[in-house]
Amino acid sequence: MKKFVLIPDSFKGTLSSKEICSIMSDGIKEHFSDAEIVSIPVADGGEGSVDCFISALGGERVSVKVKGPYFEEIDSFYGIIDGGKTAVIEMAAAAGLPMVENNKNPMLTTTYGVGEIMLDAVKRGVDKIIMGLGGSCTNDFGCGAAAACGVKFFNELGQEFIPTGGTLKDVVKVDLSGLDKSLNVVKIVTMCDIDNPPYGKTGASYVFAPQKGADEDCVKALDEGVKNLCSVLKEEHGLALDNLSGGGAAGAMGAGMVAFFNSELKMGIDTVLETVRFSDIIKDAFVIFTGEGKIDSQSLRGKVVIGVAREAKKQSVPVISVVGGADGDISKAYSEGVTAVFTINRLPQDFSISRRYSKENLKFSFDNILRALKI
Amino acid sequence: MKKFVLIPDSFKGTLSSKEICSIMSDGIKEHFSDAEIVSIPVADGGEGSVDCFISALGGERVSVKVKGPYFEEIDSFYGIIDGGKTAVIEMAAAAGLPMVENNKNPMLTTTYGVGEIMLDAVKRGVDKIIMGLGGSCTNDFGCGAAAACGVKFFNELGQEFIPTGGTLKDVVKVDLSGLDKSLNVVKIVTMCDIDNPPYGKTGASYVFAPQKGADEDCVKALDEGVKNLCSVLKEEHGLALDNLSGGGAAGAMGAGMVAFFNSELKMGIDTVLETVRFSDIIKDAFVIFTGEGKIDSQSLRGKVVIGVAREAKKQSVPVISVVGGADGDISKAYSEGVTAVFTINRLPQDFSISRRYSKENLKFSFDNILRALKI
Repeated sequence: MKKFVLIPDSFKGTLSSKEICSIMSDGIKEHFSDAEIVSIPVADGGEGSVDCFISALGGERVSVKVKGPYFEEIDSFYGIIDGGKTAVIEMAAAAGLPMVENNKNPMLTTTYGVGEIMLDAVKRGVDKIIMGLGGSCTNDFGCGAAAACGVKFFNELGQEFIPTGGTLKDVVKVDLSGLDKSLNVVKIVTMCDIDNPPYGKTGASYVFAPQKGADEDCVKALDEGVKNLCSVLKEEHGLALDNLSGGGAAGAMGAGMVAFFNSELKMGIDTVLETVRFSDIIKDAFVIFTGEGKIDSQSLRGKVVIGVAREAKKQSVPVISVVGGADGDISKAYSEGVTAVFTINRLPQDFSISRRYSKENLKFSFDNILRALKI
Repeated sequence: MKKFVLIPDSFKGTLSSKEICSIMSDGIKEHFSDAEIVSIPVADGGEGSVDCFISALGGERVSVKVKGPYFEEIDSFYGIIDGGKTAVIEMAAAAGLPMVENNKNPMLTTTYGVGEIMLDAVKRGVDKIIMGLGGSCTNDFGCGAAAACGVKFFNELGQEFIPTGGTLKDVVKVDLSGLDKSLNVVKIVTMCDIDNPPYGKTGASYVFAPQKGADEDCVKALDEGVKNLCSVLKEEHGLALDNLSGGGAAGAMGAGMVAFFNSELKMGIDTVLETVRFSDIIKDAFVIFTGEGKIDSQSLRGKVVIGVAREAKKQSVPVISVVGGADGDISKAYSEGVTAVFTINRLPQDFSISRRYSKENLKFSFDNILRALKI
């Protein structure tokens, strides 16, 4: 009986990692009827992150009522894995962009519900929280989540308030001491796959706020707000967030997770590999299948395929990467532990056409890889 | 030591089968340093056919002075294989389209030199001639070649002449009895990969003469000439050529080879497989690599990949097909003996762009196939 481990990233814009796992799994069952298959549909912190961990490790999806992006009551969820010890949260489950599709406004939206989810998880006795950032409709620095957990924000009149993107600029004082004590004994790891700093031209507001509905003036105001909070947190609490890599994730919630919750920021794939105990999973594997939309010199910098390959290399387990495209010199992939790379393009077609056939194309190419592996 | 057999068709318009063999061969040497490699760059009868056989079997390239398309003196060649027993001739070596690039005229051009090459080969004592049709600048029914070998053509005044495309219509009588006696003991096999009949809307003149320089009137005249000769040969010699599949090849020389030389017409790949004794070559092979520009339901009708697969299946040797594109349902390929099909498209690009990268793309995908085979 051969063991196959599936750990693909999504093909951005065409196939989710869950769909990819499902196609691969079907193919394997067809060619290796007695195969053992472990599916780990990698998510980068955004939508699908909870399912990723539950799919790989088993666990429970917990429903919870919290505040939505406009402080309205919503039904949200998170995951409990590891025999109840670890909670996995997608911040997008309480502050996601799809929730405000017709009413986007990063000046007003909040991450308050994300903090409520954290508290719910802590009440269940977890000793670790994995927070997935990504797909947010907010630009509030995570202040909403922090406020839900007891952090207090004050304006220059000394009034306490819950900052949103538009009122970050009014914060003159932050009281961290009120943070719910139960959170002190919980390890918090934040998954984030971008390296943007909190503010500035490459920061949260300039790069990501436009897709959340911000116009030019709005972007400027949001950016100034984030910058103001960084400076308050530096002066009052000695926190150096200005150049924090990943601090700009999810509307600067990356910076907030560090400042308010003492979390570490970690690449999604590293968090996944560690949490699912990847090195144990692959011990007796015949082959590992990974993949991503496009492998190129940029994706060789610690993204999914390479993260997987490095672990596999330590145990000499073959890694086959199935990708939508391979651009430029990717020979570094081989030295990092990738055995072979296959693209899914059945026909020479522009992406505008081929993207419609991603499913069929993946199915076709994967089927042929399996056929070749039987030689 | 592993044995690899390379037998690709060309990728029409981008890579010759010889180039493909060379890229594959380089890749194999890199990954399997002690590999035994047999290269059989398949040609369909046109340019490269002589090299195909010499590359697969060893042999000798013979230089010979003959008449060119305009009866001018030219340097031509053919191949001797099989320890001197078989000659391989490309008709394009004496009547090829590239020879008249700036002066195309299928009304005037002749295959006379092709007949001279045949006689030269026979003088060397071969007992078999493989004639490759394809890439011709002529539309003379092979009358030039036949005349060179002693066949006599007469007009209504009883005058002997050598018909070209424009004067086929003047033939009223053909005397086959003068054919050089030495040819009677030679087996002649003609390679031809098209199934067009000699004349009519799907015949030699209508389909192929335009690319040889014929305008509309010219095409009509050529077609009538071919039809006239078919009717003369039927009335005088009882030859039924009108619907001969492949009779339209190389300006109706397909029909001429049957009529004047009593040759059989055979698919290129079948001739190649038989001549190189493919079933012996693959006996101890680890894997066979074949390929073509595009695999689709049409190419599953007896073209190179399937021809190869059928032979390989008898001996359960794996066949990997590397293709420029795979279109539609090709599952029949697997049941015919193809183990796996891989496309070379590194990126989702339209053919107008990707065709420029065929070499790099093939190199990349083949390299990864070899890497996977080492698992």
